[in-house]
This record gives sequence, structure tokens and C-alpha cells, in this order.
Amino acid sequence: MKNRVFIKGLSSHIGKTVAIAGWVSVRRDQGKMVFFDFRDMTGNVQGVVLTKSPALDAAKEVTVESAVQVGGVINKRPLKNVQADKQNGDIELQIESIEMLSKAQTLPFELGTELNLDTHLDNLPLTLRTQRSRDIFEMQSSILEAYRASLKRQHFTEFEAPALVGGDAEGGAAAFKVEYFKDTVAYLATSPQFYKQIMVGPFERAFTVAKIFRAEKSATTRHLSEATCLDFEMGFIESEREPMAILEKAIQDTVQAVAEQHADIFKRFNTSPPKIPGPPAGGIPILTLAEAHETLGVAPEPDMAPEHERGICEWAKKEKGSDFVFITRFPTAKRAFYTYEDPTEAPLSRGFDLLFRGLEINSGAQRIHDYDSLIGRMNERGLDPEKFAFYLQAFKYGMPPHGGSSTGLERFTARMLEIANVKEATAFPRDMTRIDTRLSE
Amino acid sequence: MKNRVFIKGLSSHIGKTVAIAGWVSVRRDQGKMVFFDFRDMTGNVQGVVLTKSPALDAAKEVTVESAVQVGGVINKRPLKNVQADKQNGDIELQIESIEMLSKAQTLPFELGTELNLDTHLDNLPLTLRTQRSRDIFEMQSSILEAYRASLKRQHFTEFEAPALVGGDAEGGAAAFKVEYFKDTVAYLATSPQFYKQIMVGPFERAFTVAKIFRAEKSATTRHLSEATCLDFEMGFIESEREPMAILEKAIQDTVQAVAEQHADIFKRFNTSPPKIPGPPAGGIPILTLAEAHETLGVAPEPDMAPEHERGICEWAKKEKGSDFVFITRFPTAKRAFYTYEDPTEAPLSRGFDLLFRGLEINSGAQRIHDYDSLIGRMNERGLDPEKFAFYLQAFKYGMPPHGGSSTGLERFTARMLEIANVKEATAFPRDMTRIDTRLSE
Repeated sequence: MKNRVFIKGLSSHIGKTVAIAGWVSVRRDQGKMVFFDFRDMTGNVQGVVLTKSPALDAAKEVTVESAVQVGGVINKRPLKNVQADKQNGDIELQIESIEMLSKAQTLPFELGTELNLDTHLDNLPLTLRTQRSRDIFEMQSSILEAYRASLKRQHFTEFEAPALVGGDAEGGAAAFKVEYFKDTVAYLATSPQFYKQIMVGPFERAFTVAKIFRAEKSATTRHLSEATCLDFEMGFIESEREPMAILEKAIQDTVQAVAEQHADIFKRFNTSPPKIPGPPAGGIPILTLAEAHETLGVAPEPDMAPEHERGICEWAKKEKGSDFVFITRFPTAKRAFYTYEDPTEAPLSRGFDLLFRGLEINSGAQRIHDYDSLIGRMNERGLDPEKFAFYLQAFKYGMPPHGGSSTGLERFTARMLEIANVKEATAFPRDMTRIDTRLSE
Repeated sequence: MKNRVFIKGLSSHIGKTVAIAGWVSVRRDQGKMVFFDFRDMTGNVQGVVLTKSPALDAAKEVTVESAVQVGGVINKRPLKNVQADKQNGDIELQIESIEMLSKAQTLPFELGTELNLDTHLDNLPLTLRTQRSRDIFEMQSSILEAYRASLKRQHFTEFEAPALVGGDAEGGAAAFKVEYFKDTVAYLATSPQFYKQIMVGPFERAFTVAKIFRAEKSATTRHLSEATCLDFEMGFIESEREPMAILEKAIQDTVQAVAEQHADIFKRFNTSPPKIPGPPAGGIPILTLAEAHETLGVAPEPDMAPEHERGICEWAKKEKGSDFVFITRFPTAKRAFYTYEDPTEAPLSRGFDLLFRGLEINSGAQRIHDYDSLIGRMNERGLDPEKFAFYLQAFKYGMPPHGGSSTGLERFTARMLEIANVKEATAFPRDMTRIDTRLSE
């Protein structure tokens, strides 16, 4: 809009007439005067319509959340009214004109009130405007940017993995069926795994930000039908330790970026940027699964129960000063079919999980790179190699030892701000009961 | 891998023993000596196994595309053998050991031979390794990065739009059906349009890199069943000219970035970075649809035919020195239902297309922001507002005048390198006849 001044820059216009545009966050009608809080993408400012303002009639019409264009003069506030800790806390817009761009109907609830999750989700086009939601998704946007930038610096090439696939590739998680052309059935990808492995061939190091879809009938705080994963894969490794090092660097870079950019958001969420021990303590602690159970004083198990994930994270925080902890050496039988197992280490695999503040946010491994071994593993698991013919081409023609990992963006975001339910860290969450609106029974 | 040296840095190791890891691109067995070209993610180098090398037996076993670890000494080449225009053209690796990491079977064809598209696509895990494919997807990775970075600098917040939706939102393009929970049917998104409009509420300026799915029975060089779009939307605009300006800046920034990074790729594709006229000529030329037809000397039509898209691009290149051209003022009836039409401009809309080297790569518009007008338009088009209840919330509660656009990543990439078929600019293309492998009849 012509001559619009962004709210962030208003304090350099003291004494001058300006035009702003934005939403009405707050309206306080004191009869002779009307006070407003306005917001645009750069921030907030208070405005006042004085008794004799030509805008007084218009001000009476303005509702909360209306989109408006406002003209007026920027005044310094008297010292007693200055709010030093607030953006533009030392100025006020003395309003001379209000143009209604789009009048909001009466809100169904006051914006920012604590709502139950279903009401929040039923009203996302409105509730995403709250400070809390804007904080969450501003954080998520920064995580995406920082994570990708770190992988780029570590020489990874980004590619687009497909969402439509020909079969339920992993043979594990339930896949959604799609009616495709020629009466064929396609599926929604449960992982970009095969495609990132294939991309090791052209690029040696490849990453993708991909949608994954799981038809699991789970209604927990950690499950989504559609999620976003940050996946990478790299060639010419000696063990799972190399992808773990790449991942750790990406996590470190991301944490550093959001700590620098979003001190205010961490504060509003009553938490702080996660800690990773620096040298000489040496980064994210690594425990084998057996060590983790021993540390917790519980019986060995083939996997981590959710309460043990929480327990070992508490231990890592207290004893190692780390909000993250790696768990390695899960039994091969508990991992995806393509997970590498060194003969000297059987029946344990080269898989790993990364836990963050009580929750698994990442899973990775060294993979099988030898064609015959991979066929052997498929046969062991009752999988038909014929169905994997496309994928197997990569292994026929020289696949180096390789590995990688997959981070759940929504889980990472949720734990970053200590949000209990991953659905709140998903802009438009899909689950068993909902796609935007609730599914009818 | 331990002590591995990346190929790019080999020239600083002259006279020293090094270990490299990578693929065998070329193998020339001269009986007493064997020559190799090796490649890793940083480049290419020539190696030679001399008659008395302990690696001679191993060298006889090595096949093209095998993944290998190679030890040897970096020698300067004699002056007469120097290839100045090639990476590492002044050095050679004198090989002393070869460790086979993964032996490639005999290739079905020589890598780099010109293949028909179906053969290329049938063998992607192999053919994506060609110089040509690596170039295309290196370019695509850079486009993604530069485009997002430009939007970030222009104050846009990135978000994740969903791929699973409750209905065929646009009411136009055919949507794929998904078997969802509770015997309900979901659809694959044909556009992130509604979600980015909703995101104007929280962020004023929002963008997403999203997958879109079209069940159109089209088998042209420009159609895909699954494509990636670069979508943005912004609030508080006066007309479509503001999103056009944002888009032009993003395109300019992207072109500048890839021109700087990929001179070699443009050269290999026998093309050059696209031109956008600088000041004072003033950027990408803008023609109304009527002006475009007049310029071409053809009868007015309500849309651009593919041959006219090509014609007007030729005109823009020749007369304006621009590889891009904007077309505006399409009839409202030809555009999506949410397209804004100013009463003084009816029956023309505030929609626009961006053409690039003969092909439409982007479509955008100012949108309807007024709730009642939007309901009115839905009714005119025979759409049931009840089905859009979730989306309509955004308009009930103060939606400013807004607009945005959507760029097809694969089309943008294809035209950047003047590739005839958009499928070649898609890592794993899906169409009527194929998901990785060909669909059975």
C-alpha cells in the first residue's frame, strides 16, 4: 500500500503524520476516547482516538481483528506512560483517520484465551493469529531455514522426494491408499527413505524436506496422519557415527540460530534454548540401548518405552547438561529391513535414535549397501524383492556404504518450546478424527 | 571415511599419498596400464594403475560405476598432457591400492548415452547419476534455496501446507481420492491456495513449498501428476502489482544466484542465464491479454494458447530483451473463483501469469477479501459455501486485501535449462503411465 509505514519503524517518525495498516488486536472504548492496539507483520503499537478526532465515529465501528488502514501522528508518550519493555512502548499513534479494509464479525471467543485443543483446531483460521500460534510457526519457519542451511554447508544437495508411491515401501507402517489412473492403486509415502538412498548415487550427500503419511490408528499426543520430515542420506561412511555427527552439527546450528533469533519466544513459552555440552565434554551424549536401560536401573528391553525415553532425557540433562541424547545399538530385528548389521555386532544394528526433552525426534542408521545382503534381508523378512526392483537398481550399480537420518519437524518444534501435543506444532494437523474439520462419525 | 581427501582438493597434495573414495566414471584398460576417471561429490580426477602397481590385479576387476576407495600418489602431469579446461586436468592419481566397496554389475547401457525418455525413467537410480541429471537437480536445489531466501528477505514466513485435504478445494482440477479413516474419503491437494490465504492472518506474508497433485488425464510435456509449487501470499495490497513486484524480485534473485553458481551448467546445456531488463527499461515487461494478442496480430481470445505463449515470449526476448513476460487482465470467468475483479474493470480480473521462455511457470492474482463478495462468487459458480466453512472463517474475521502467486518448480527448472519435457526436470516424475515403474495396462 502506498506510503504505508511498517509498525516496527514508527519510532523514527515522531511528530510526523503516518499511515499504517494492520489488524486490531485490542480495542478499549472509554466513551470520549478509544484506545487500540494494532499489529502488522513487524509488530505492535498503541493508538488513540481523542475526543475531537474526525476518526471518532469510525472508531466506534471498528471491531477486534478487523483489518484497517490508519492515519495519524506519532507522539512521544509522557514519561509516566512509557512501557520500556514493550515494542513502541514510548510512542503512541494519535489517530486522525481509520479506513475499514475488512470488518471482523464478533469473535466466538476472546483471542488468546486458553482453549481446549479441539476448539483451537476447529477455529484455526482465527486461532493461528494468536501470539502463541504465531510464535510456534515463526519458530518452525526458523528451524526449517537453519536446518537446511546447515546441511547445505555440509555439502548436501536438496531434492524433492515424491509423496505418491507405487507400494507400501517400508512394509511396516500402514499406508493410505490412493485411487490412481487406470484403476491402479497408489499409496502415500510413509518415508522418503528409498529415494534419498537412490540420491546418494548422483550426489553422495542428499537431503529432502518431505511429507510423510501414516494410516496408523493412533490418537496419541505424538502421532499425526501427515507429518513433515527433514531427511538426509550420505555415502562413503565407516559407521553410523558419521551421519550422527552430521545430524549433531545440524541440530547445533539450528539451536544456535533460533537462540539468536527468538529469545522473546523462548521467554513467552517459559523455557530456554536447549543445551548441548561444548568441548571438552564433547557434544550430545551417546548411550547404547543396553547402557540406557542400565543407567535407568531397569531390565533390558529391545526398544525404548516412552517413559524410559523421558527418564534417560532427565538423566542426560542432569548428569551431562544436555537436552539431547543419542541411543544406539538397537536389535536389528526391531529396525527397518534395510538397517545394517555388522557380523561382529549381531544381533545389534547400526541404527540410532535421537531423543530431545523426553521424545524421540529423529531416527537413523547405517544402511545395507551390498545388493546380495539386501536381497537376503528382504527374504528373511518375507518381503518380495520383485516389488523393490526399482529401488534395487541403485544397489546393482555400485552403492557405497551409506547412512542417514530423519527428523520429525513437528516433534522438533514441539519439544523446542515444550509444547505437550505435537498437533499444536502443526499448522493444519490431520489425524484419525480430523482434516481441518472433524470427520463425521 | 578416515583420512579421505575430497577430489576437489587433490591439487594441494602433489607428491603426497592420499586416499579418495568415489565412483568409477570411466575405465580404460590398456593391458599393461589401466586408466580411470573417478568422481565424488566434489568433482572428477584421472587415475592410472601402472604396470608394476600392486593394484593391477584389483584394477582388472573394477567395473564402471563401482564404488571404490583408492590410495595413491598425486603427480603433476607432464605439460603435454595437461588439460587446462578440466578440473584436476594438471594432475593424476598414481594408484597403489583399490578397495572395492560395492562392485557394479554390467550397465544396461553406457552412462551418458542419449536415451529415450522412457528408458531414462525406467532406470532412474542409474540415470540420475549422469552429468546431465546431476546438473538439472543441482540447478533445482539452487533455485529452491535462492527463491526461499529471497522471500525470507522480503519478510515472508515459511509454513507447511497440508497435502491431505477434505475436499476438492478449487472445484476445478481433478483431485485424487484417498481412503481415509472411518470410511471417509480425503483428497490430495491440488493447490495450497486456501492455506496460504489463511496464513495471511497470522503472518501477513507467508510462503510454502508444497506438493500438489492433479488427476488430469494429460500426457503432455508440461503435465505431472505430482508437482512442487513455490507459493506465496501477502496482505495489505492495493492491486496485483504488489505480488507481481515481490515475484519479480524473487525471480531476479534466483536468476542472479544460479548465474553466479552454475556458469558451467548453463554452458553444458548450451544456454545462458535468463535476461531481465534492468533500469531504465524497467524489469519484466507487462502486457494485458488484449495487448498480447494485438502484439501477435491474432484475434482476441479469453486465454493464451500454448503457441501464443511461445510467440509473446519470442517478442519479449527480441523487443524487450527479456526472457520473462507478465500477462495480466484475463477475464474473471477464466480464473479461479477467488480471483478479485474490480467493478470498474469487469469482466477482467486482477489475475496474472508469468511466462518464461515460452511456458507459463507462474500464476497469481489479487484475491477477493470481502466475505460477502466471496460467498456471492461461490454462488455464481455453483459452489456450496457450506463446504468451504473452514476456509471462510479467515474472511469472517478481518481479511485484508491480499494476493499472491504460485510458481511450478519443475517448469521453472526446465525452462532455466531449456529442457523440452518437464518430466526430465522432476527427480521421480509421476504421470498417467508411471509411478517409478510403468503402470500395467
